[in-house]
Amino acid sequence: MKLIRYGDSGHEKPGMLDADGNLRDLSNHIDDIAGAALSDENLKTLAALDVDTLPLVSKANGAPRIGPCVGNVGKFICIGLNYSDHAAESGMDVPPEPVIFFKATSAICGPNDDVEIPRTSTATDWEVELGVVIGKHAKYIKEEDALEHVAGYCVINDISERDFQIKRSGQWVKGKSADTFGPIGPWLVTRDEVPDPQALNMYLDVNGKRMQDGSTATMVYGVAHVIAYLSQFMSLHPGDIISTGTPPGVGMGQKPDPIYLKAGDTMTLGIDGLGTQTQKTVAA
Amino acid sequence: MKLIRYGDSGHEKPGMLDADGNLRDLSNHIDDIAGAALSDENLKTLAALDVDTLPLVSKANGAPRIGPCVGNVGKFICIGLNYSDHAAESGMDVPPEPVIFFKATSAICGPNDDVEIPRTSTATDWEVELGVVIGKHAKYIKEEDALEHVAGYCVINDISERDFQIKRSGQWVKGKSADTFGPIGPWLVTRDEVPDPQALNMYLDVNGKRMQDGSTATMVYGVAHVIAYLSQFMSLHPGDIISTGTPPGVGMGQKPDPIYLKAGDTMTLGIDGLGTQTQKTVAA
Repeated sequence: MKLIRYGDSGHEKPGMLDADGNLRDLSNHIDDIAGAALSDENLKTLAALDVDTLPLVSKANGAPRIGPCVGNVGKFICIGLNYSDHAAESGMDVPPEPVIFFKATSAICGPNDDVEIPRTSTATDWEVELGVVIGKHAKYIKEEDALEHVAGYCVINDISERDFQIKRSGQWVKGKSADTFGPIGPWLVTRDEVPDPQALNMYLDVNGKRMQDGSTATMVYGVAHVIAYLSQFMSLHPGDIISTGTPPGVGMGQKPDPIYLKAGDTMTLGIDGLGTQTQKTVAA
Repeated sequence: MKLIRYGDSGHEKPGMLDADGNLRDLSNHIDDIAGAALSDENLKTLAALDVDTLPLVSKANGAPRIGPCVGNVGKFICIGLNYSDHAAESGMDVPPEPVIFFKATSAICGPNDDVEIPRTSTATDWEVELGVVIGKHAKYIKEEDALEHVAGYCVINDISERDFQIKRSGQWVKGKSADTFGPIGPWLVTRDEVPDPQALNMYLDVNGKRMQDGSTATMVYGVAHVIAYLSQFMSLHPGDIISTGTPPGVGMGQKPDPIYLKAGDTMTLGIDGLGTQTQKTVAA
């Protein structure tokens, strides 16, 4: 299934795509695509619905806004330097075990919402990443059991202010947490439709120019390892999101000089089977 | 007011203390002590209630469990090395601007709940801290306006696994986020009862021995500065919590050798006017 949240920010309704790519309303069946609704049991119930009987969402007044594909996210966890080529372009070594940091959950926005360039920013950057949405509580789990804890996958743009992240007195969270720094979606694609999360092509264009062109095949620490690893340090709950790192091609790594976003730029990014995002940048 | 959440974990009810220190039920007036309920307007409505008419919570079967004093916390933000003496005992310099890190919101627990020592942990440590609970959205605000965004204050034990935090490949969050690493409460004390958040004595005992004995007077970056500073990097929302750093006396700083927690230890901590916490440590 491709689950989707649509409508005004903060008031999104749950929906799903039908076989023709039309948006169908799920409001009569679940309150939100969030928390307990992401359990295997609940997803099975949704999968058993006759999608053609679900109300078609009208496009009469234009397609509705698409919101972040998961609501009420408890934790927005990121893995740093998780592609060896990206670590190299960042001038850092591949870490001996996964680097973990958090983004603020208040940074989450819809996949096509405008992205704010923070005031005083001179180094706002992009990062296409595979997002993993947790469906079942995970604590001290083993790698071989880890994927059972996944509800599904989504596209994430882990937008980052590099000076805030690196030059402003410690801990990356400072450059990862501005409002709109976390576009998520368009879809939560359930894990049955993603047989191998380590074989997904991904890309990101800025103003039509291809900047990132990678594959989850070159992740250092794969999805199952990351989930099991995280679960040694914290509980993962349904609705938590893990952003698994970015391949090469971020603005910070451009030669001869870094290239950063300015108001009026357009980012387009996508991952095989998980849909695409398009964001315009605006001044905060 | 001293607001309190009581009852079983995940099912806490809202309450408040009356003038005699008895617990009164607020369920008929608010759903939870969380989010929008923390606005000045809503807090004024609660303050106008005749507390003696609120149902007295029975202690017939023992006092109820006290939960974390805020529900549905969006962000659990911490300020690092924010007391100069603590920075010194940690072998680090006072940072030129505040260091920010996050704890997992899933680490939050009640003030007297058992604290789990993580599996494989050898360096679980304590940190008494002044907690600031946000009541009003803050984005790009000025220091002189910052305290208007505070709903109130509480005691926090920012429990930390030092090896996970420092020796395990980057970003402190890894040592800050285990389940039960964030006891919060017992009370959310509204800001009208805390005229000067920079003049509060605080302490923490381990097994009856005084380990931390400090005052918020020696914070490097005060509450108002920290709120305004954070708001340059992310939006603060009602129900977000800021833990403002710890004074000297943590286990890591003990001489000649660090002292860390083991299962069966007891921590007791408190801050002037904000109540006390007592936790027993158990193996995870």
